[in-house]
This record gives sequence, C-alpha cells and structure tokens, in this order.
Amino acid sequence: MFDKKMLDIGYSQSTIRDLYTYGLARKKVIGDDNVYDFSIGNPSIPAPSVVNETLIKLLSEEDSVKIHGYTVSPGNIDVRDSIATYLNKTYNTAVIGKYIFLTCGAAASLAIVTKALVFPNEEVIVFAPHFPEYRTYTEAVGGKLVTVNPDPDFLPDFIDLENKITNKTKIVIYDSPNNPTGAFYTEETIKKMSDILSKKEKEYGHPIYLVSDEPYRELLYGNEKYPFVTNYYCNSIVCYSFSKSLSLPGERIGYILVNPKCEDVEDVYAVICGAASMLGYICAPALFQNMVPYVLGHTSNLEEYKKNKDTLYNALKEIGYDVIYPTGAFYLFMKALEEDAEAFSEVAKKFELLLVPSDPFSYKGYIRIAYCVSYKQIVNSLPAFKKLYDYYKK
Amino acid sequence: MFDKKMLDIGYSQSTIRDLYTYGLARKKVIGDDNVYDFSIGNPSIPAPSVVNETLIKLLSEEDSVKIHGYTVSPGNIDVRDSIATYLNKTYNTAVIGKYIFLTCGAAASLAIVTKALVFPNEEVIVFAPHFPEYRTYTEAVGGKLVTVNPDPDFLPDFIDLENKITNKTKIVIYDSPNNPTGAFYTEETIKKMSDILSKKEKEYGHPIYLVSDEPYRELLYGNEKYPFVTNYYCNSIVCYSFSKSLSLPGERIGYILVNPKCEDVEDVYAVICGAASMLGYICAPALFQNMVPYVLGHTSNLEEYKKNKDTLYNALKEIGYDVIYPTGAFYLFMKALEEDAEAFSEVAKKFELLLVPSDPFSYKGYIRIAYCVSYKQIVNSLPAFKKLYDYYKK
Repeated sequence: MFDKKMLDIGYSQSTIRDLYTYGLARKKVIGDDNVYDFSIGNPSIPAPSVVNETLIKLLSEEDSVKIHGYTVSPGNIDVRDSIATYLNKTYNTAVIGKYIFLTCGAAASLAIVTKALVFPNEEVIVFAPHFPEYRTYTEAVGGKLVTVNPDPDFLPDFIDLENKITNKTKIVIYDSPNNPTGAFYTEETIKKMSDILSKKEKEYGHPIYLVSDEPYRELLYGNEKYPFVTNYYCNSIVCYSFSKSLSLPGERIGYILVNPKCEDVEDVYAVICGAASMLGYICAPALFQNMVPYVLGHTSNLEEYKKNKDTLYNALKEIGYDVIYPTGAFYLFMKALEEDAEAFSEVAKKFELLLVPSDPFSYKGYIRIAYCVSYKQIVNSLPAFKKLYDYYKK
Repeated sequence: MFDKKMLDIGYSQSTIRDLYTYGLARKKVIGDDNVYDFSIGNPSIPAPSVVNETLIKLLSEEDSVKIHGYTVSPGNIDVRDSIATYLNKTYNTAVIGKYIFLTCGAAASLAIVTKALVFPNEEVIVFAPHFPEYRTYTEAVGGKLVTVNPDPDFLPDFIDLENKITNKTKIVIYDSPNNPTGAFYTEETIKKMSDILSKKEKEYGHPIYLVSDEPYRELLYGNEKYPFVTNYYCNSIVCYSFSKSLSLPGERIGYILVNPKCEDVEDVYAVICGAASMLGYICAPALFQNMVPYVLGHTSNLEEYKKNKDTLYNALKEIGYDVIYPTGAFYLFMKALEEDAEAFSEVAKKFELLLVPSDPFSYKGYIRIAYCVSYKQIVNSLPAFKKLYDYYKK
C-alpha cells in the first residue's frame, strides 16, 4: 500500500527527535531545570537584534505586495547579488549572484542538489561521523551512501577516501565545522581532498562534485580562516543556511551556490533549478529573502557558545571522559563508557542526561552533546555527568 | 550527464514565467503603464493589516529563540489545532490538528502528497484545464498524468472521469475555484465525483485518494457555500495555502490536511511525514506558523478583485469575446480568436496584452487572463482588447 522506507521515516521520528520528545515529556514530570537535554541543535541564543529590526522595518515601510509577493524561483536577484558580493569580499573568491539559488534552508539545499545530480545507483561519499540526513536524501533518489572513515583527529582518512571513489561516485559531501564532532577542515585538508578528487575526475573522465555543507561556517571559536571551497576545487557547490549563525533555524532560509568555474556551469545551475521545481520549491520565504542583504556578516553572540564549550569540555575532561576538542559548531563528541552507544545513552537518561548516540551518524561508540543550551544547564548538568562516570568506573 | 527532464524544466521557465519576464523587459522600453501584463497569479492587493500587525507584535514581544526556532517537522501542534478548530467551525466538519502537516505552501503540499502516495507507473487524474504543475509533481515520481475533459461549464465530464479511472489510479486532484477558469465545484459536483470514486474504490479494492487543492477557497464572489471535501469523501486530502487569500504568495505557508476518516489514516499521515523529510522539508517557516492562529478567517479585500472581474468580464463580453463566467479565483478564461492559442497570445503581444495560452493547462484554444492587477490596468487595457478583437474580426 505504502512505500516502506517513507513510512518508516514518517513513523520513526529520528533518534534525535525521539530523545527531544522524551525530554519534553520528562520535563513535565520532574521540572524543566531537572532534565539536561543536550539532544537537539536548536540555537539557544537569540538572533542578533539586526534581524528583528530589519524585519520590522521591512514590514512597516515596504509595500505589502512587494515584500510578501512571489519572487522568481531562484530568489530575488538583488539579494543573490548581495550574497555574492559579501562572499567575494569575505573569502576573496569570485562567485556570482546568477549562480546562487535561495532555498528554504540547508535541508532543502541538500535535497535539491542530490536530486539534481545523483542518478539511481550512483554513489554519494560522506565522512563518518556525518549528519544523518545525507543518507535520507541519497536514498530518496535511489543513490548509495558510501562513508569514509575518520583519522584520529576526526578529519577524513585520505587513503580511505581515495579507495572509496569509484566510477559511480557523483558527489562528495562534507561539513566543516562538523556536526557531530566540531572538527574543522583546514585549508590543507581542503587542498588534499581536492587533489584526490581532481585525480579521480581525470581517471574516470567525468566530474565529481564536491558539496560543502556550511550551516556552521561562522561558528568558529578561534582564529581559524575558513577555506572557501570555490577557491580550491572547480566542480564545487556550497549549501548554506542562516539557521545557526543567525539563530533562525525555523525560518528556512539559505542558499545553494554553484561555483562559476564548474564544468558546464549553466547546465549544473539549470538542473538544480529543475530539481527544485520538481520537489515543490517555488521561492524561498520572501520576507526573509528581503532581510538577507541587511544581515550578511552578522551573527548571534557566539561568545555564549564558546563559554558553554569551554566550561563543558574542561569539566568533562577533568571528570575523565574522552572528548574530541571542537574547533567549531556547537557539538561535543564524547566516547561512550561502553561499546554500545545506544545502551550508554539509555543509562545516561537515568541521570537525566539526554545524549545522542553516534549510530545514526554512521559511527559507533560515541555520543553527541549539543551544547547550544543555557549556561545554567551546562553548570547544573556537571554533577550528573560525574555520577554517570562514577556509575561506570566505580 | 544530467537528467533531461530536470534540465528542461530548469531552462524553460514556464510559458507563464516567460511571458512575465518578457513583460518586465517590455515595461523598461515603453513604460510600466503601457504594458498590460495579465500573465501571473501574483496577488495585487495588500495583505490585510492583521498580517503585518501580528508579525510585528510577534517580533516585538515574543522570545527570539521561541519565535524563530525549529518546530517539530509537521509544525507547532497549537497552530495545527487552531486550524482544525477554525475549519470545523467554518465548514461544519470534524478534522483534527494531529493530521495536519504545515508546509511551505501549496506547491510543497502537492509535491509531498504526490511523492507520498503515487508509485512509479501509477496514475494521477486531473481535470482539464488544470494547473500545469500537477504534471511536474506526477512525473517527478514516475507517475502518469491522465486528464479528464471538461463539460460545457468547465466542470468535470463525469462520464469521461468514470472511463478514465483504472486499477492504476491512485489520486484524483481538483481545484475549486479553478485555475485557470474560475469554475466552482458545487456540493452536487463534489457528491457526484465522490460517488464515482467510491464505486471505483469498491470495484478495484483499494483507496483512490481525492486531493482538493484549495489556494483559492476564499476567493468566491457570490454567496457560494464551499463544500468541504472531508464531509463527502473519506479518502480525501486537502492542500491549502495562505498565498492567495492573504496575499502572501512569497511567504510559503500552507498545509496538508488528511481526513481523519481516511482508511489507515495513521499510515497515510506517516507516509506524508516521510515524503516531506525525503524532499527536504523540515518545518514550515516558523514566524509565519506563529502568525496563523491570528489570521484564520481573514482575507485581503476581495472586493477589489470582484470589481476587476466585473469590469473586465462585462467589457470583454461587450466587445464580443467568448469568456467563461468565473465564480471565483482571479482568472478569466477566454476563447482565443484563432485555433492556436499560442499564436493568438503572440498577436496579443503586438497590442501589449500579455495573455497566457491554455496549452500548458492541457487545453487548447483559450487564453488565461490573471486579473489580480490594478484596476487602472483593467480600465486602460480595454482599448487594446478592442483593437485585438478588431484585428481578427475586421
């Protein structure tokens, strides 16, 4: 009667959503402050004031028909040009508004790009541990997800990458800083990856697209310079969302950017437009499109995440946990205290700690801690982390 | 290299978009007031004041994290409950928020429902003339679009409908009032259609879903009572958008409603949730979700469309054109003055009239006039319509 995979996805909220839903119910029983919910990547700090100020100004001053009306499907060209100008200045690159397609957020961008480029039975390479939805979008178009193992720093194992590229490899997706580890791909990493892909493109005689999924691009806590992929690899595509940098995850505004240096760039852009139409994407929400030129370069107050990260990371290390140091994003990746991360996550619940097991990220034995929560929750949760540790070690 | 159909869709703006783009260019040459663009269904009257007032109030008073944050994928349950309450009161029906899924507008709703329910090689029945994108969403999932002929009033030819239902028919889609004719499906029409479908469901032993696409539901100019499909047919699904009633087409907010009386309703709703995930839909834009409870039952000032309609309809009849009387929506469907509607549309351009040929609506020999334009444009265009008529008739 129904497609089994679709039905399964529809019923099984994801592991993450399940934990989140459990947390909401549990809070009703024992009180909001007594559940330490680290399950979901919903930004905990407000949008910068420029967001609401701009929205109110647009709503108050602009013509209703203009501000709420249809734009062309890829989005208002003035908005797209403003993004290109901003990117060129910030990352010293040379992209153009004509090859930007505004979308309803990063999920839409990834679903569209995958639909556009991947034929049934072709392969999509991702780097474990990876954002679980890469699998959904790949399988939705009949493609096959291939995962590359991480090196000890949770960056790509390049030998494994090289071995896993085949004649059927169509796209390679990475996100930096990474969800769930917070690992950051330096310029050196991007260059190495590009070299391997270029060699394989030559070997197989067709493009292998490198897709950079960048919702956490601005969430870097040191002095890292973000290596913008269009500067390193011709057949590259950027998927961006304003969800995390501006604390607007519910508003569904982001973009796809095709590198102007892409082989057959007009065709690549057109097939993305066509895929978007087929998936029911008409234009990105117009009010938020109109907001974009005013907020480029702004972020929420990232110092709050940094404070959370430093406090939690230091405390967990001190307790004795094995935690990956996160360069960016708002996740900590921590080794579970038993082999089975799902079992560990269940035990953690007894201490009111909601931690996401790493299995849906195609990786075993770890848990993800989304530290985009109140500082109070960080501080209050520390005794529970200690008790959880003692439960295993004593 | 690329999927040909997707590439074609990506390159070929639709006929409608092509005309619209031509109009924008032509206006730059001869001035905005001298081009009579009737190509596109972009509402010309502002959103009712309650829309911007509500948005500004939410932005000013509510917590940023709450107002802009993720909701669960199907949307905030309080919002969905408010929609159910409103529908139950307005249409004397018994739907529930639990089976409502908030979407990024009607296009998203239709793409999701089609993906969820139609397997490759199954058939989707629509009524000519019909909204062109029904074909896109059907072919996107490998389905086959089957068109039923209209009767002389541009309502379904029921004998043709009965003949065209086969064992492969999975869904039947109608929109009332109709784009492009403005025809309205009375209670009697819905009942007849339901009877035929029920008989065929029995004959073939499986559900045939009736999908009511309702973006123009509130755009009725007489005293018509809207027959709500859930009251007449169990296996029914409503796709709604706030685009037209509230003049918010760019904002992408609408919903899918599954009739609680649907056979295996839990599965139907779950497969819709699954399809949405696979297509990259996470949640509908949160600010606009939050707006919905405050604007239910409101519309833009429809009197303006009525004035446009009456003036244009009467004038075109007076000139001598053969025009279908539109009960609702904001389109007039008019017989072309030669067999080839595309050729007629080209001739009309010489008189600066941009009229959409009926061919993309799976119907020949007519043109669609979107009268959601300024009243000034209606009045100023009349001499051009007269000249166009004289060109053919004298």
